[in-house]
Amino acid sequence: MTQVRLKRLGLLGGMGPSATLDVLQKIVELTDANTDQQHLPIIVWNLPQIPDRTASLVGGGASPAPLLAAGARGLRQAGADYISIACNTAHHWYDVIRAASCLPVIHIADTAIEALAGVEVRRGQVAIMATAGTIASGFYQSRLLRAGYIPLLPHRSVQDEAVSGAIAHAKAGRWPEAVRAVSHGVEHVVARGADAVLLACTELPLLVRGLQPHVPMIDANRALAHACIRHAGARQRADPVMAQEPTGR
Amino acid sequence: MTQVRLKRLGLLGGMGPSATLDVLQKIVELTDANTDQQHLPIIVWNLPQIPDRTASLVGGGASPAPLLAAGARGLRQAGADYISIACNTAHHWYDVIRAASCLPVIHIADTAIEALAGVEVRRGQVAIMATAGTIASGFYQSRLLRAGYIPLLPHRSVQDEAVSGAIAHAKAGRWPEAVRAVSHGVEHVVARGADAVLLACTELPLLVRGLQPHVPMIDANRALAHACIRHAGARQRADPVMAQEPTGR
Repeated sequence: MTQVRLKRLGLLGGMGPSATLDVLQKIVELTDANTDQQHLPIIVWNLPQIPDRTASLVGGGASPAPLLAAGARGLRQAGADYISIACNTAHHWYDVIRAASCLPVIHIADTAIEALAGVEVRRGQVAIMATAGTIASGFYQSRLLRAGYIPLLPHRSVQDEAVSGAIAHAKAGRWPEAVRAVSHGVEHVVARGADAVLLACTELPLLVRGLQPHVPMIDANRALAHACIRHAGARQRADPVMAQEPTGR
Repeated sequence: MTQVRLKRLGLLGGMGPSATLDVLQKIVELTDANTDQQHLPIIVWNLPQIPDRTASLVGGGASPAPLLAAGARGLRQAGADYISIACNTAHHWYDVIRAASCLPVIHIADTAIEALAGVEVRRGQVAIMATAGTIASGFYQSRLLRAGYIPLLPHRSVQDEAVSGAIAHAKAGRWPEAVRAVSHGVEHVVARGADAVLLACTELPLLVRGLQPHVPMIDANRALAHACIRHAGARQRADPVMAQEPTGR
């Protein structure tokens, strides 16, 4: 048996740690491996001390850029061949991370929008469920428009209470409250006319497992996991989660 | 609020990747945190390409020592203050890892045997459920004897089919087969007179969730997670899993 050398992934994470675990879990589950050795080599930089991304973008908090850049350099030193970031909001500093690492960096929004191609989006209206920081940064809106979709945001009050509220609950480990809040948020965007929902904060896929919202939901973590496996050169498992993954993979 | 600087954990893992995820999950769950920033900073060296530990110890396979040492050096370079190893069998090379990293290294068997103190072990007979490599290395047996317990091993055929078999199934993602095999192994050691069962392979705690074996089971991953949190200087959550954790923590 010839052994293919798999590329080594550098995962910039800890923002928060549960979201990093969700991405890692999906990478392991979606890799078609029979032995340890066929799984992706990964260095994880799980640094929850990186200043809050949304607080920096919309609240005037400390910038996470220096620690993100330090993590990117550390991952390169640790032998990473490419980088992924297990936090949507941190992608606001995508260029900083790419420059600091001098490595290819997968963009989670590119992978999520690619995954939209595999589901039915009737009138093209795609709701973005994300932190206030990701919304303020605008990288999902611009990419959706470029791909021919109409970005749809929750009303400000729903964003604050349901979406941002759910994320805060999740980060504090208050799971029932988080699930209730996010299910209210999904109902709201569907009532506003969303044909699909982008789960564009890495904490959110943890919260929607029981929901049946009648429109496809794209799990950005899952899309990122697929992209990481492809980029490593490993084999992907067939993914039965049709509503969250394109059929063409 | 004064912010305590938490020590940075270097986790040597990927042996296999699911076991590493289980340890990480337990660290996150058992840390008493309300924000990301109160969670442990962790660098994970998840390298499934490290040669199989048991194959090296009992089958004449390639030694994992060079890659374990390289990982230990890499974790030190990445700023780790101390190291844990998310693989019981790899602890055969504990001295190599400590020498290569020049850092404190938590020994999973020390944490598991410490956890035994919190449960009732009537006649002192403790079964070791582990890989053939861990059994051959003997570091659990020697520590149990030193702590006043009587180590009890499965019969060779049960070791091969139930314990080693379950671990191989788990590494290949064949979960139902793995759970069936391990439950046969637990029944066997309880019938042989075990007063407590040490789950001394990091894959095993994933497989015993539904079992009710009438004797306490010590989850070495969980004991390791508690030790990592303590060593970091973070706050531990109260742990309701009485059968797996000492009350005194």
